[in-house]
Amino acid sequence: MKRHLDDELRKMKEKLFKMGTLVELAIKDASLALFERHAEKAQAVIRNDQEINICEIEIDELGHELIALYQPAAVDLRLITMVLKMTSDLERMGDQAVNIAQQALVINEYPPIKPYKELPQMAPKAQEMVQGSLDAFMHRDVEKAKQILEMDDVLDRFYDTVYEDVQKIMEQAPSTVRPGVGLIMVAHNLERIGDLATNIAEDVIYLNKGIDIRHHIRERRE
Amino acid sequence: MKRHLDDELRKMKEKLFKMGTLVELAIKDASLALFERHAEKAQAVIRNDQEINICEIEIDELGHELIALYQPAAVDLRLITMVLKMTSDLERMGDQAVNIAQQALVINEYPPIKPYKELPQMAPKAQEMVQGSLDAFMHRDVEKAKQILEMDDVLDRFYDTVYEDVQKIMEQAPSTVRPGVGLIMVAHNLERIGDLATNIAEDVIYLNKGIDIRHHIRERRE
Repeated sequence: MKRHLDDELRKMKEKLFKMGTLVELAIKDASLALFERHAEKAQAVIRNDQEINICEIEIDELGHELIALYQPAAVDLRLITMVLKMTSDLERMGDQAVNIAQQALVINEYPPIKPYKELPQMAPKAQEMVQGSLDAFMHRDVEKAKQILEMDDVLDRFYDTVYEDVQKIMEQAPSTVRPGVGLIMVAHNLERIGDLATNIAEDVIYLNKGIDIRHHIRERRE
Repeated sequence: MKRHLDDELRKMKEKLFKMGTLVELAIKDASLALFERHAEKAQAVIRNDQEINICEIEIDELGHELIALYQPAAVDLRLITMVLKMTSDLERMGDQAVNIAQQALVINEYPPIKPYKELPQMAPKAQEMVQGSLDAFMHRDVEKAKQILEMDDVLDRFYDTVYEDVQKIMEQAPSTVRPGVGLIMVAHNLERIGDLATNIAEDVIYLNKGIDIRHHIRERRE
């Protein structure tokens, strides 16, 4: 029975990994849609979000089946309920990518605003955090999870800089207000993706250490 | 055994209700901090968020204990895992209230922007949605849950109007850029609270109908 459960848990993790890969791709493509002014890529991100949503439902179903069928012991149960929370987090990251894609379609109707040098650095950082948090989960790697928390501080600082810089640009040139607000929203979306990856990393630490660090270290700013 | 589980589930619901009440209060006070320019209220919302965070941890612990101890059948298991997801949603609403309070402290350093007539309507609507979604959950009231979905459409329209109006104001008066961006972020926070309440309402419908409507009707825009 235990061996079967282990097999099933491995399958669940594989599905989660697939979902994570789709989310990473969505973030990457949404950023490209913005920075390369690529409308078609934006449309694709919006269209493909449904696939991420279906992953959430399928993994949730599987998780419930496993609990009902195997009545897993404490550690495995925690693992499954953590996956149930992770699918929500990943699904929301997908939504954030959709928002970026939607903003890209609006922003790209205006002449480009220069400079906003930290924003292009935020997207790969957010992506790296998503990948890293999933890796940390897959390999129960507490050190990796801690790195994600540090990366989130970097991402937060980028966000603060973009928020400040773009406001200055808008104050100087009223014609930049609309694309400027859009860029601030994009920076916000990326910062939120970082927060969601941080949630996963915190849960990995929690699951492996058995202590709840979630609200001691978390400082969310949405 | 079943009777004991029912007692425990009732206790869990009571704790969830308490958590919801704290969240509603946070949203209300954060809005008052903004609209009545009340710095002390803003500080209180930021300070009191810790209490909401503790609720999440306590309810999560209880949920896991109940699954491990009672190995509940399908319907009760769904109820518990739904509560585990709801605590995340409520905790995030608390974070959104904190963000509003933080923005209020910034915005209130500037002269008030007029008019932004839809924004003051958003806060009570968001609060009503939180309360309604919890009521729908407590009483397994599918009709009530459906009303939440309709209210979310209203909240989304308010958000669109605020987003548009404030941008116009900023284009006309560069001195309003900083408080203007802050107000757009507040509107965004309130819209997100509505989305999170909508998640809960969708889960209530799902739990009672057994069909997954989550991604058929959900159109999130964060």
